[in-house]
Amino acid sequence: MTQLVHEKLHQVEGILKELDIDCWLTFVRETTDAGDPVLPLILDHPLTWQSALILTQSGERIAIVGKYEDEAVRSSGAWSKVLTYVQSIKEPLCNELNRLQPKEVALNYSLNDVKADGLTFGLFELLKQHLSETPFASRFLSAEKIIGTLRGRKSPGEIQRVRRAIATTEEIFLDLTRYARPGHTEIDIHGHLHDAAARRHVGLAWEAALCPSVTTGPGSMAGHGFPSDQLCVSEGNIFHIDYGVRRDGYCSDLQRSWYVPRTGETRPPESVQKGFDTVRRAILAAAEVLQPGVEGWTVDAAARRVVIEAGYPEYQHATGHQVGRACHDGGGVLGPQWERYGQTPFFPIEEGNIFTLELGVDLEGRGYLGLEEMVLVTKKGIEWLSSPQESLPLLPV
Amino acid sequence: MTQLVHEKLHQVEGILKELDIDCWLTFVRETTDAGDPVLPLILDHPLTWQSALILTQSGERIAIVGKYEDEAVRSSGAWSKVLTYVQSIKEPLCNELNRLQPKEVALNYSLNDVKADGLTFGLFELLKQHLSETPFASRFLSAEKIIGTLRGRKSPGEIQRVRRAIATTEEIFLDLTRYARPGHTEIDIHGHLHDAAARRHVGLAWEAALCPSVTTGPGSMAGHGFPSDQLCVSEGNIFHIDYGVRRDGYCSDLQRSWYVPRTGETRPPESVQKGFDTVRRAILAAAEVLQPGVEGWTVDAAARRVVIEAGYPEYQHATGHQVGRACHDGGGVLGPQWERYGQTPFFPIEEGNIFTLELGVDLEGRGYLGLEEMVLVTKKGIEWLSSPQESLPLLPV
Repeated sequence: MTQLVHEKLHQVEGILKELDIDCWLTFVRETTDAGDPVLPLILDHPLTWQSALILTQSGERIAIVGKYEDEAVRSSGAWSKVLTYVQSIKEPLCNELNRLQPKEVALNYSLNDVKADGLTFGLFELLKQHLSETPFASRFLSAEKIIGTLRGRKSPGEIQRVRRAIATTEEIFLDLTRYARPGHTEIDIHGHLHDAAARRHVGLAWEAALCPSVTTGPGSMAGHGFPSDQLCVSEGNIFHIDYGVRRDGYCSDLQRSWYVPRTGETRPPESVQKGFDTVRRAILAAAEVLQPGVEGWTVDAAARRVVIEAGYPEYQHATGHQVGRACHDGGGVLGPQWERYGQTPFFPIEEGNIFTLELGVDLEGRGYLGLEEMVLVTKKGIEWLSSPQESLPLLPV
Repeated sequence: MTQLVHEKLHQVEGILKELDIDCWLTFVRETTDAGDPVLPLILDHPLTWQSALILTQSGERIAIVGKYEDEAVRSSGAWSKVLTYVQSIKEPLCNELNRLQPKEVALNYSLNDVKADGLTFGLFELLKQHLSETPFASRFLSAEKIIGTLRGRKSPGEIQRVRRAIATTEEIFLDLTRYARPGHTEIDIHGHLHDAAARRHVGLAWEAALCPSVTTGPGSMAGHGFPSDQLCVSEGNIFHIDYGVRRDGYCSDLQRSWYVPRTGETRPPESVQKGFDTVRRAILAAAEVLQPGVEGWTVDAAARRVVIEAGYPEYQHATGHQVGRACHDGGGVLGPQWERYGQTPFFPIEEGNIFTLELGVDLEGRGYLGLEEMVLVTKKGIEWLSSPQESLPLLPV
C-alpha cells in the first residue's frame, strides 16, 4: 500500500497548484472507528490521538501526531516533517501554521460529497479552539474539490487494482451460474457468494449483510434489502445479483441478471426480453455520452430517457457513481439534479475516473432486472472495465 | 444482533428521561464508509441516503430513510414509525419535528468523546439548511451525555459478549506461550496471533497491522508501532503483547508480558521483577479506587502515583478506557487531566461500565513491560473480567 500512498501524495501537490489552494489540513483522531475516508489515500496506518496532516502547494508534507505514533509515520518515508506531542497538539499545530502563513486552510467537510466530509463537527470546533489565537480559524474552506479530484483521478496502481477486483468478481459470477438453481433461497445464494469471496481471499465491497443483494422475483426486498430465507430462485422469474469484492483495498460493484426458464421455455418471454433490451440500451446511451468535461447529470439524462421512453417507471437512483477504495467513492455522480445529490451531478468528469453504469426495471410478476457495468473514463470516451452483459442468459434448471 | 439493538433502544428512553432531553436525532448518510460510531448500537444495518433516526423521551422511535431502505429498517421491528423519501429528506424531517415540537434536539457531536462525535461538519451544515425554516436549528445540543451513558452502561447481552471475547483472547495467550520462542521475529508473533484469531473465527479488536502490538526488547517500536521483521524474541529481554479480538461484535483488549531467561536463569533479574511488581501494584491501586460515582482521573492518579514513587518515568497515556463494541469505547476515561483528554477524565463512573486497567514501564536494556486487564464496574467496586496476570512467567526457551 505504501507505493499507492506515494502515488496519491504526489498527485496532491499538482491538485493544490491547479486549484490554487495553499494548504490542506486533515485533522483526525481515533481513526480506527470513525476514520476520515480520505485518510487511507494519504497514510497507510491509523492514528489515535488528535493528529494533523498538512500538505502544501509548495510540496511540504507535515504530520503532527501523538508521541507513540512517531515511528509508524516516519517509517512510511512519505512525510517530510514529523512532529510529535504528548499533552496537546495546539502548540506544534499553531507553530507550523504560523510558519507557513497559508492564505487559506482547506478542511475535510462537504455538503455534497460524503467522501470529502470526514471532519466531525466536534473536531471542527476543537480545531477552531486550537487556532483561536491565530488568524487561520477564519481562513477555512472546503477541501471538497481537492479530495474529489484526488479520489477521482485514479493512478495506474489504482486502476490495476480495480481491474483485478473486477476480474475476481466476474470469475465468481461464472462460478455462480454453475451453482444457482431453482429452489435455492436468497440466503443460499448470499452464503455462496460470501464463501466464493473467502475462498479467493478477497473481502466484500460493502456490508456483508447486504453484499450481495439478491432478488429472485416480485416478492424480494427492493434495493438495499436483506436476502430472504423463504424466497427462492424460481422458474418464470428474474434472478438478479448486485455484488462486489474488495481486493488489495479496491472495489468492484457489478449487477447481473438471468432469466429462470419454465419447462419448455428456450428463451425469455417477450416482456422480459424487452426489459433487458431497454436496460442494456440505456446503459449504452450513458456510455455514449460519458467523456471528460461533461457533467454527470447529462450522462444520467441520456440513460433515463431510454427507460422512460420505453414506458417504464423512472428509476429512483443515479445512473452511476465512482468506484475505488470505496464502492461509493465520492466526487461527482452520474445522477439527476435532485436535492439529495447536492452539487455532485454538476462536477465535471475527468480522465481517469472510474464509474458504474447501472439501472434496472421492475417487471410485473417477474421481478427486478438490473445491470451494472464499470467503465474507465479515457481521453475521448470510455473503456469498459467489466465485460458488459450483452444478452439475458437462461439460468440452467 | 437485533436482540442487542432492542436492549440498547430500551435503555435510550430511560437515559433521555434521566437527562431530561426531549429528542435525540442521529443524522447520517453512506454509513458504510464513514459511519457514525453510535449507529450499530441503535440499528443493525447500514443506511445509504441521508437518514434521520429520532428517539424521544416519550418513547417514540422514528426512522426517516431512503425509499430503498424502508423494508430493511421495518424488518428489525425496533422502530415505531418508518418514513421514506425519494428526492429530499427535508420535508418528512421538518414535519416530524414540527409534530414533536422538541425543546431541544441532541445531535452527535462532542469535543471530548470521539464515540459521540459521529456527525460530520458537512452533515451538520446540511441539517441546519434543512431546518432553516423551523425553530429547531437553534435548539441543538450535544448528545455526548446520552451516547456516553448508552455505550457505557453495558446491557447483560453486551457483558456476556465481552466476557466471551476475553475468554477467546486468554485461550490464544495460552496457545502463544506454547509457540513463542527466542528467534521468532515480531512479524512471526504478529502472524501467529492473526492465524490464532482466524482459526477461532473471531476478528481483531483494532487494525490488523497493529493488532497485536509486539515488543521484544529495547529496540522495538514503542506504543502503536509496527512489528519488525528483524527484531526477535531474545534471551534477557521482556516479551510483551498488546492484543484483542472482536467476537460477536464486542472487543477485548489485554496486555501480557513474559521474561525470556538467559541460560541458567531460573527467575527474572531483580530490575525486571521490580518493574513487574510496580506495574502490578499500580493496577491493583487503580482497581482499589474504581467504583461508581468516582471520576476517572482519581483512578488514574492512584496508579500513576505508584509508578512515579517507584522511580519510573510517568507513563504518557491514560490508565484505562472503556471497551465494548469498540476497543476504545468512548465516554469517560481513567486518565490524567491533560488537554488531550478534554472533559473525559471528569465523567463519573457508573455501574455496568467496562474498563481496561493498563500501564507499563520501560526497563533499560530489557524492553517494555506492560500489563492490561479488563474489569466490570459493579455496585460497590469492580469484578475482574480478565484473569489478572499475577506474576511474571519465564517464557520456555
